[in-house]
Amino acid sequence: MLPLHQSQYKKGPNFVELKDVAQETHVDQYIWIRGRLHRSRMKGKLCFFVVRFQDYRIQNVLSASERTPKEMLAFVAGIPKESIIDLYGCVKKSPVLIEGCNPDTVEIHCERVYVVSAALPTLPLQIEDAMRPEDDETVLSRVHQDTRLDNRYIELRTPVNQAIYRVEAGCVRFFMDYLTKAGFVNIQTPKMISAASEGGANVFKVSYFSGSAYLAQSPQLYKQMAIAADFGRVFTIGAVFRAEDSNTHRHLTEFVGMDIEMAFKNHYHEVVDLIADMFVNMFKGLQREFASEIDTIRKQYKSEPFQFLEPTLRLEYREGIQMLREAGWDLGDLDDLTTPAEKFLGRLIKQKYGTDFYILDKFPLDIRAFYTMPHPTEKEFSNSYDFYMRGEEIMSGAQRIHDPALLTERALHHGVEIEKIKSYIDAFRYGCPPHAGGGIGLERVTMLFLGLDNIRKTSMFPRDPKRLTP
Amino acid sequence: MLPLHQSQYKKGPNFVELKDVAQETHVDQYIWIRGRLHRSRMKGKLCFFVVRFQDYRIQNVLSASERTPKEMLAFVAGIPKESIIDLYGCVKKSPVLIEGCNPDTVEIHCERVYVVSAALPTLPLQIEDAMRPEDDETVLSRVHQDTRLDNRYIELRTPVNQAIYRVEAGCVRFFMDYLTKAGFVNIQTPKMISAASEGGANVFKVSYFSGSAYLAQSPQLYKQMAIAADFGRVFTIGAVFRAEDSNTHRHLTEFVGMDIEMAFKNHYHEVVDLIADMFVNMFKGLQREFASEIDTIRKQYKSEPFQFLEPTLRLEYREGIQMLREAGWDLGDLDDLTTPAEKFLGRLIKQKYGTDFYILDKFPLDIRAFYTMPHPTEKEFSNSYDFYMRGEEIMSGAQRIHDPALLTERALHHGVEIEKIKSYIDAFRYGCPPHAGGGIGLERVTMLFLGLDNIRKTSMFPRDPKRLTP
Repeated sequence: MLPLHQSQYKKGPNFVELKDVAQETHVDQYIWIRGRLHRSRMKGKLCFFVVRFQDYRIQNVLSASERTPKEMLAFVAGIPKESIIDLYGCVKKSPVLIEGCNPDTVEIHCERVYVVSAALPTLPLQIEDAMRPEDDETVLSRVHQDTRLDNRYIELRTPVNQAIYRVEAGCVRFFMDYLTKAGFVNIQTPKMISAASEGGANVFKVSYFSGSAYLAQSPQLYKQMAIAADFGRVFTIGAVFRAEDSNTHRHLTEFVGMDIEMAFKNHYHEVVDLIADMFVNMFKGLQREFASEIDTIRKQYKSEPFQFLEPTLRLEYREGIQMLREAGWDLGDLDDLTTPAEKFLGRLIKQKYGTDFYILDKFPLDIRAFYTMPHPTEKEFSNSYDFYMRGEEIMSGAQRIHDPALLTERALHHGVEIEKIKSYIDAFRYGCPPHAGGGIGLERVTMLFLGLDNIRKTSMFPRDPKRLTP
Repeated sequence: MLPLHQSQYKKGPNFVELKDVAQETHVDQYIWIRGRLHRSRMKGKLCFFVVRFQDYRIQNVLSASERTPKEMLAFVAGIPKESIIDLYGCVKKSPVLIEGCNPDTVEIHCERVYVVSAALPTLPLQIEDAMRPEDDETVLSRVHQDTRLDNRYIELRTPVNQAIYRVEAGCVRFFMDYLTKAGFVNIQTPKMISAASEGGANVFKVSYFSGSAYLAQSPQLYKQMAIAADFGRVFTIGAVFRAEDSNTHRHLTEFVGMDIEMAFKNHYHEVVDLIADMFVNMFKGLQREFASEIDTIRKQYKSEPFQFLEPTLRLEYREGIQMLREAGWDLGDLDDLTTPAEKFLGRLIKQKYGTDFYILDKFPLDIRAFYTMPHPTEKEFSNSYDFYMRGEEIMSGAQRIHDPALLTERALHHGVEIEKIKSYIDAFRYGCPPHAGGGIGLERVTMLFLGLDNIRKTSMFPRDPKRLTP
């Protein structure tokens, strides 16, 4: 047992990372490692124990000898699982592959063990239970979602979670890198706003000194103001808030929005094509750089690999409706698609075109937000689009109305109180280039790319109407 | 006057960007450009007008001729400033440099002009006024800060703002790229939390369905949970909220936090050194890649270039106190530094060491947050540090207490209600490696790197106790 680590010594052992222990240079050498006690068992004069960190698990052996009294074995066998320990020993090649370990070709013949940070002896969940494949029918003890989420700082230690949140960070990085190279500026937009931005419903209210504020449901107004302010191409990444009492597999009350807005010259498809190419670049990057993480995730949560085409498939909304009708759905040209209809259409498209990623373009005008630009010739349609992954919407976007008179007219048509959106409309009174954009839900993209079944698996600390902790 | 741009045509003119107009290949060629009408004037049979986009301004000439009737000149001269226009004309080398233009070596002999989006004839502020250097004493009409902020979507069009927010985006990018390469995982943390995270004061309250939530004052708990969950090294970028009624040049109620947390092996200086190197890399990157933006900013807002050393200067807190004492300040070893004392110390350090960037290390324990690790031998001090730029704190950090017993003791000592931080303490009951980190204010880093005098110049849509709009 070490005293509390208060940075007593500037210099100390040169620790080897678990992932590097199997390197040839370490074999037959004495090294220090730090990790968690994953499991341990006594076997006569031997104590076997596994040290874990992230996706790495290394077997260690402590054997009773002159230098290592039996009490030492008992001490190690008694260390609570999940404690952080330092150990010193000699790396030895193992004659056989060590089951359940990674690397599985070496073990450490251990001489010293110190507890850096002890865990309580009783854990709220067992990491080994939380690591088992979902479809393993021999499993006796499953860990329920609420137990996992309530004890997130333990459950996140599993290899699958280590992998999921690395993939999610990869989505953000590929998004930013692509757009930065394409001349976009990363802007920061406020979350506390003075009026409900998109008309009023489903908004969280904040006490703001002696008055009130609201939590932004999207950065819509702000990214459009940046376009009106000549930034040309912008993106922003940040929390967005929806006070919807929806308890589904794909709704959160707080999620991460990755938003794009871009001035274009001749046609809003310039924007659609750029965003589609950004996604394709992201998917390729994830498959290239996160192959081992994706593999780890699919071992626990089975899924089909994500498929996409180049260039991205773009269908008109009415073509989607037509496909559903041919499959027996009773739908009018201008009907909104329900979630089951969207999912079914996703399967039809997968069958016909072999892609999990596609765009529906030219939505009916009346089912879109008031600021959506109407189609130039077909009055019932609009210059708007949704992007889908595996039959679920992951981005909604449109050319925006940049003309204050038409914007006012459309807001009135939708029953939006003009007074509440005055500053939004005013932003277009001093010249604004034609522009389009979209808002992407990060957790949905990660969930659907990985073929997961619940958005709580891709939100590190999810928020829904029933959950505000941890 | 064009009809409203509703993406009528898939194909259209091949527009040349303003920054590219002076390229040799365009000289004596007819091209299309799109930009804002910056200013115009009639001079006999000629109409001169400047088209602007971002930092680029191009002179255009329209002359009355058979093909161009005088009415056309009157029409162009009558277009309200700031309108978005398309124009077609021939690029001609100018015999003299054109004052106030960029590029200033060519002008366009214009044949056609169309209004894409008209501005109102009366602007709430004049862009040319908003562009003038602050120290220009000949200026008759200054634009006040509130006028600028109230009309942000116009004021942001100035070259200085175009530059500032590109530099700010650069700060974020250099931060992320450095840390990603160093093995950090970008995590997303919730902004709505169930209890006031750092003890209770200065927190915004949110109505959350039938209950209440609070807005996170920092991602502290969450990034530490990620460390307890074996992510090893994490960063997160996002909005943080402070319900402080501070109306100063450097406080906002909402700002962008760039937070770091990292498990270390032997000493928390492993973390301090890494963060210092991250900053040095950022400063070098900004000076390398944003030289022209920095130049544009310094033309309007005068400042000294930002200076820093390699490796970064790290002084102990007590050395800072000593320097101030020698300069006549009456300070005890354990006194907290006031803002004027910090600024004065910044000047002393600049004189003595020639750096605007430095670290104060080993702060007195009692003036730091309850979760700060005490120094191992000197009971009145702690393993904590602040980073400074030009005498203002831009990052506060520390080794954190990873032991639940000591954490409880320190919380009680600080008068924090244990019940309110129970989940914070519980996160350390199942093993947690020693770790340290810090929280960086993005707007402050940008402000101080550029030598600006007010944080409202580096927050695109600032929030303070008196401002929630636009």
